[in-house]
Amino acid sequence: MERPHSLYFRYQGHGQLVAKPAAYVALTPGERLLNRIRATVFGRPLSTEEEIGERLSKKKALAIFSSDAISSSAYATEEILRVLVLAGASALLLSVEVAIAIALLLTVVSVSYRQVCRAYPGGGGAYVVARTNLAPIFGLIAAAALLIDYVMTVAVSTASAIAQIQSVVPAVYDIRIEIAFVSISLITIANLRGLRESGNIFAVPTYLFVGLALAIVAIGAIRIIGGTAAPMAAEPDAVSFGTEGLGVLLLLKAFAGGSVALTGVEAIANGVPAFKPPESRNAANTMTAMAVLLGILFIGLTVFAVQFGLRPTLAGGPSIVALAARTAFGDGSALFVTFAASTALILFLAANTSFNAFPRLAAILAEDGYMPRQFSFRGDRLAYSWGIVLLAGVAFLLLAAFGGDTHALIPLYSVGVFVTFTLSQVGMVRHWWNERSAGWRWRMAVNAGGAVLTAIVLLVVVSEKFVDGAYLVVILVPTLVAMMLFIKHQYTRSNRELAVAPDLVVRAPHREQRVVVPIPGLTRAVVQAINVGRTISDDIRAVYISDDPVSAADVRTTFERQVPGVTLVVVESPYRALSGPLLAYLELLDAAWPPDKREPITFVVIPEYVARSWWERILYNQASKRLRRVLLGRPHTVLVNVPYRREDPALFESALGAEHADQ
Amino acid sequence: MERPHSLYFRYQGHGQLVAKPAAYVALTPGERLLNRIRATVFGRPLSTEEEIGERLSKKKALAIFSSDAISSSAYATEEILRVLVLAGASALLLSVEVAIAIALLLTVVSVSYRQVCRAYPGGGGAYVVARTNLAPIFGLIAAAALLIDYVMTVAVSTASAIAQIQSVVPAVYDIRIEIAFVSISLITIANLRGLRESGNIFAVPTYLFVGLALAIVAIGAIRIIGGTAAPMAAEPDAVSFGTEGLGVLLLLKAFAGGSVALTGVEAIANGVPAFKPPESRNAANTMTAMAVLLGILFIGLTVFAVQFGLRPTLAGGPSIVALAARTAFGDGSALFVTFAASTALILFLAANTSFNAFPRLAAILAEDGYMPRQFSFRGDRLAYSWGIVLLAGVAFLLLAAFGGDTHALIPLYSVGVFVTFTLSQVGMVRHWWNERSAGWRWRMAVNAGGAVLTAIVLLVVVSEKFVDGAYLVVILVPTLVAMMLFIKHQYTRSNRELAVAPDLVVRAPHREQRVVVPIPGLTRAVVQAINVGRTISDDIRAVYISDDPVSAADVRTTFERQVPGVTLVVVESPYRALSGPLLAYLELLDAAWPPDKREPITFVVIPEYVARSWWERILYNQASKRLRRVLLGRPHTVLVNVPYRREDPALFESALGAEHADQ
Repeated sequence: MERPHSLYFRYQGHGQLVAKPAAYVALTPGERLLNRIRATVFGRPLSTEEEIGERLSKKKALAIFSSDAISSSAYATEEILRVLVLAGASALLLSVEVAIAIALLLTVVSVSYRQVCRAYPGGGGAYVVARTNLAPIFGLIAAAALLIDYVMTVAVSTASAIAQIQSVVPAVYDIRIEIAFVSISLITIANLRGLRESGNIFAVPTYLFVGLALAIVAIGAIRIIGGTAAPMAAEPDAVSFGTEGLGVLLLLKAFAGGSVALTGVEAIANGVPAFKPPESRNAANTMTAMAVLLGILFIGLTVFAVQFGLRPTLAGGPSIVALAARTAFGDGSALFVTFAASTALILFLAANTSFNAFPRLAAILAEDGYMPRQFSFRGDRLAYSWGIVLLAGVAFLLLAAFGGDTHALIPLYSVGVFVTFTLSQVGMVRHWWNERSAGWRWRMAVNAGGAVLTAIVLLVVVSEKFVDGAYLVVILVPTLVAMMLFIKHQYTRSNRELAVAPDLVVRAPHREQRVVVPIPGLTRAVVQAINVGRTISDDIRAVYISDDPVSAADVRTTFERQVPGVTLVVVESPYRALSGPLLAYLELLDAAWPPDKREPITFVVIPEYVARSWWERILYNQASKRLRRVLLGRPHTVLVNVPYRREDPALFESALGAEHADQ
Repeated sequence: MERPHSLYFRYQGHGQLVAKPAAYVALTPGERLLNRIRATVFGRPLSTEEEIGERLSKKKALAIFSSDAISSSAYATEEILRVLVLAGASALLLSVEVAIAIALLLTVVSVSYRQVCRAYPGGGGAYVVARTNLAPIFGLIAAAALLIDYVMTVAVSTASAIAQIQSVVPAVYDIRIEIAFVSISLITIANLRGLRESGNIFAVPTYLFVGLALAIVAIGAIRIIGGTAAPMAAEPDAVSFGTEGLGVLLLLKAFAGGSVALTGVEAIANGVPAFKPPESRNAANTMTAMAVLLGILFIGLTVFAVQFGLRPTLAGGPSIVALAARTAFGDGSALFVTFAASTALILFLAANTSFNAFPRLAAILAEDGYMPRQFSFRGDRLAYSWGIVLLAGVAFLLLAAFGGDTHALIPLYSVGVFVTFTLSQVGMVRHWWNERSAGWRWRMAVNAGGAVLTAIVLLVVVSEKFVDGAYLVVILVPTLVAMMLFIKHQYTRSNRELAVAPDLVVRAPHREQRVVVPIPGLTRAVVQAINVGRTISDDIRAVYISDDPVSAADVRTTFERQVPGVTLVVVESPYRALSGPLLAYLELLDAAWPPDKREPITFVVIPEYVARSWWERILYNQASKRLRRVLLGRPHTVLVNVPYRREDPALFESALGAEHADQ
């Protein structure tokens, strides 16, 4: 084809084109402006081929996918201490054992997810594992639990980051919802800019936190080894020791509390395709790196806390990690302040993990037909825009509804995490059993152990927290699963209905055409519509529907004089409605068709005035909108919209046959 | 045409049909259900011919159009007393003179509006008078002031009815917004049922109030004449006498306060066409009846209050009319209780006057092009549904925004009323001057006097209440006027652009057609769309746009095997968007057209899956919606929507040429 248009396309052969960037800007001026704004805020559009360039190096992936898991080291130790302190000072010493037990669980879970990364390079984590190895319904349960968890993570971590700031600047309380809005918006924009850029933006604070937290652990280790570690004086607002007996139940509770450290661990397994090739190996190694880092930080901080006799404080007092930082770096030192700031930042960024994992999971679900298709579309920057925006919206609404205090949601959150873990472990057990590749026995043993452990934690969490909010899981998960099944059912049904038998060959049709043009009077838009109708068929009728016999007579006179050769039917509508009488008239036409002839296609040609702004949409075309809705449901009927644009009355003027009477 | 279809139409000649009721029910099952519900709530549809049967007798019209004006007798006296009490006990005696002055003003205004009724039988009141006799802009100012006033009337009268109930049942305070919602909804439904029915519903309470109030006045008169009228003991919470000097300013203030009695007087002149014939005379006589009733009640109650020494009470105490009723009927008597209830009811019903006047005025404005056209459409029951719903919505939002306390709005309200009065009186002066029919001199004198009086009251009200809220008029009225001028400008421009020159004769077109079918793969909906396209032109191309080269190759293979004879163009879209590349492809087609031939019409045929519920609208057709929006703006391009309905894949199956391959 022509030269000038190689501007838009590259030719790959007959009937085979590839669009160039220029093909995407041939839109209206308004949209061009929008595109420019979008390019400034979100960056220039990326082609699908560029996807590989957007992939994450292990270093960036660690920052993006681990901020949730690693940030939990900022509070997991405290969760254990808060339980054990109920049984007195000596019970606190047991927290190291509890932490080690949780670290073991972490090892099992992360080894299991390493295997998931390798076995399911397409991503999807627990959903894909459970769907493939158990049954689709278990996949959906895992997916529902994960989706809920991701929303929670955003809400809960944003709320706790704000609480962190608030403990330093109490005035923040009054604008906490505004801060939440701004921080969620920033994360949303960063994620809409795409994976690599959000990696760039978020890597620094994550590594800063990790570095400083490791420094605390190291300083602690040196002082413990050097024998200079001594219990600090208790804080003035330290929680006083309780006198509860130190039984199995309390230990289990401490274990359940500390296992919050495991939240976010599954994110990498969901996002394997985001890694640079070799995707599976890189993801698995990143998984290990994350687990090792998290394990060191968690056990290290716990040992530090025990050795230096740190005790949790009453609400509003400094957190355990803040006390640890003060002990290690000195009160008010620059490092201490930097660490405090980076703790707040990484809590904000924990939300970012969800912003990567949620849209990916939604996209995988959409591809499987369990979510609306839009969730699998990638935006200009290759990000799953629908998922990102949905997550941001729901999380912000949740925060706003709970007035910025999302503590009530935390039980719900832990339940979701362990439902997913258990399902994925059980799925992996089945996987090894089916596969029986080299080393399947010990792999299966690891997963089976993990499944038992996580199931126990799940039971503990559920029984401890059922009335506190965990019961919501019993409502929310089935609701989400039912919605997904419903969507799947819809798509399955429509796909079946729309399927074309593979042996069907479509021949050219031989069907009569008939044109009906509903008109509101005689305007240029009407003339244009009638002329378009005439190019379709000579069997054409204009239908004027009115409740006013006088105007009807006027229209007839004008029409018959100015548009000779087209039949005008006037329908008087005493009840004023348009669509009813038009449908009835179409019925009449059908009945009048000779019964021996094949029923024709009726083209209803609707003149339309192109609205270019919201107020024009209110002022014009109300009737044609309604006609459209009613007629779209009619058999053998096709709708033709003939737009009339005022800048450009071309269809009317140039060639469609409107000529001055030759007088 | 055929017999069976005389079910739908009556034949009036060739190409001339009249729809029967049956023509209005041939809709979808969902709409049929909706219609049935609507018929139950709002009544069966009424034909335009039945309009005359819906007209109001004078008795019903008095109830509908006067509830606002007459209800003001429940508080106008009190407004005067509250001002005069500031100047001590003796000043209260002057309230009779003030009331008489206001009654004189009422006489002038009502005589003037009688003349408006006769001169402008089409209704529209101050708007039409000012537009016709002064200039369109003055008409719009009057209209804007009236529209604002009607909204206020609904909000303010509902709020004061609730306050009336609240003084008996304090617990009502907590659910005042809910009560407002219920009462406004009931009035809305009654009005959507149509004029006559709302007259039936609302006549009883109005006449009950009028009868009982007249009885109070009569009992008072008998006792005054019989000499048994003696000042009652002051209420415990009576306002104490002030010591201000009794100057002109205070009297003017009392006058301005009492002139609230005149609100709602113009409603009849707006609604002349709602009367039974002879419309003008009936309206004028109803006007007089209303003015006489209002005058008697107002002066009577004022005299009663003065003679029996009634004094206004502090906020929350009984109102003057309540005190009068107690004095006349005895405390706790059945008549007293009935009167108290009917006072609350008529305050609610004052809103009903607005529900008749606002939609009529909006319809007249819409016919003149100053409001969106929808406002001039009559619903099933011949009511102007859009205006009714808009009024209810705005008034309720206002009430909710002000937490049910709309006192702050009252100044705004009086200003609007007197702006309208002044403009209509001035307009009538001009009318008589132009007309100079018999008796024009004294008629003009009456209106001129009225104009001067109402202008003075306007000035007093504005200067007294400017800071209290009357300044809002200076913002709201110009804003509304600007909106109306903007709408007029839009309609004028589009009418000019769409106008067909009267000497233009439209000839049949001779234009080539070209068909482009964007397809998402090969489905039955696509096959159907392609076959419809084939009936339009043989120059047809299917365009498959995808970012995935693999699926593209699949589609090509399938398509070429199953739909022979139709060119398939595959456009690879690396940036994933659909609409940009499609538009670019259409450009390419245009450029490839032989330059010596007339440019063809491009029919873009869009396969569509008919959504029948809100969730289907989310699940399907997102892409086609966007394509529609983008393509509607393209020159020489026509959009064809081919709906695929799953219950009835008729276009596909029956005849469009889809046949099994003959193997």
